[in-house]
Amino acid sequence: MNTLDELVESFSRFPGIGKKSAARIVTYLLKADPVFLRQFAHRIVTLQERIRPCSVCGAYTEADPCPICSDPSREKTLLCVVEQPQDVAIIEASREYAGLFHVLGGLIAPLDGVGPDSLGIPRLVSRVREGGFSEVILATNPTVEGDTTAFYIRQVLADTGVRVTRLASGLPVGGDLEYADRLTLSRSFRGRTSL
Amino acid sequence: MNTLDELVESFSRFPGIGKKSAARIVTYLLKADPVFLRQFAHRIVTLQERIRPCSVCGAYTEADPCPICSDPSREKTLLCVVEQPQDVAIIEASREYAGLFHVLGGLIAPLDGVGPDSLGIPRLVSRVREGGFSEVILATNPTVEGDTTAFYIRQVLADTGVRVTRLASGLPVGGDLEYADRLTLSRSFRGRTSL
Repeated sequence: MNTLDELVESFSRFPGIGKKSAARIVTYLLKADPVFLRQFAHRIVTLQERIRPCSVCGAYTEADPCPICSDPSREKTLLCVVEQPQDVAIIEASREYAGLFHVLGGLIAPLDGVGPDSLGIPRLVSRVREGGFSEVILATNPTVEGDTTAFYIRQVLADTGVRVTRLASGLPVGGDLEYADRLTLSRSFRGRTSL
Repeated sequence: MNTLDELVESFSRFPGIGKKSAARIVTYLLKADPVFLRQFAHRIVTLQERIRPCSVCGAYTEADPCPICSDPSREKTLLCVVEQPQDVAIIEASREYAGLFHVLGGLIAPLDGVGPDSLGIPRLVSRVREGGFSEVILATNPTVEGDTTAFYIRQVLADTGVRVTRLASGLPVGGDLEYADRLTLSRSFRGRTSL
């Protein structure tokens, strides 16, 4: 196996990349600027030592606390709870939310032996008790595990007096009734809003 | 911009990779085995110095001549002409062909100023004149440029006495008449074979 085939093999390990896409990428790299290649390779080897979870919210960051936690202009009364560190970047990209985050690092999945304690839900509870939050927004995915985790968190935060909300679930914008599954349709009915 | 965002940006330059796929890959890399990451980065920086075009056929190779050109078991009377170095790997993967290759490095495109000489077609002609080939198979894509280049090569090889053939063009296996375009359908009629 030569470097070319080895590199195709490496790229095809990545999520969403098949053999053909990997070959196309390696062909691109063969003709790419050598300066870019060295920079790219350097970023890959330094990635894991530079990027760590924020000690406050759990988002991926180079500085600790992360730029969001240490930004004085964020709304410190709002806390958005997400499953994974990468969900923070997705929500940030929407520019819809200006509060703080809390990364669970997973969802409650009794069959896989993942309970509330291994997810750092106790850490979330103590953070909510300490901080002056007025609302906790549960932004876990609208799946069985995501819903279960959201309901569990709602319960354990019940006596804190903080308002607990959940992201709306329904038809995606640009979607089509014809292609909506029964559950999504049912949720979009139950969560209907006045016009 | 931190290393994470820089790396997402780097990956999203690659063909077929959007921002979301890039973010998913970088998340994968964050959790990947550090040994794999170092190896992967090393392969990227050494790629361009290790992989060169074969001086005989033009395919990407680490050794020169390439493993195909120097393999004594290949059928030395067959020569398959392809547009790009990566086409060699695609044809090799089909295991349908055991002869030699010739990479043009492009197709005739007068509007882009690409003529026969800049494609090394003279090199192909002299290779065919020297070598004991019985057949030259033109495997350029069935596009306007691919067809033009194939017709041109057929003409310049006319006086060599070597048989010049072209890959069959028609309906793809598993395809559907309903989705075939008019030209493909027309070619599949003209190239029909007896059953």
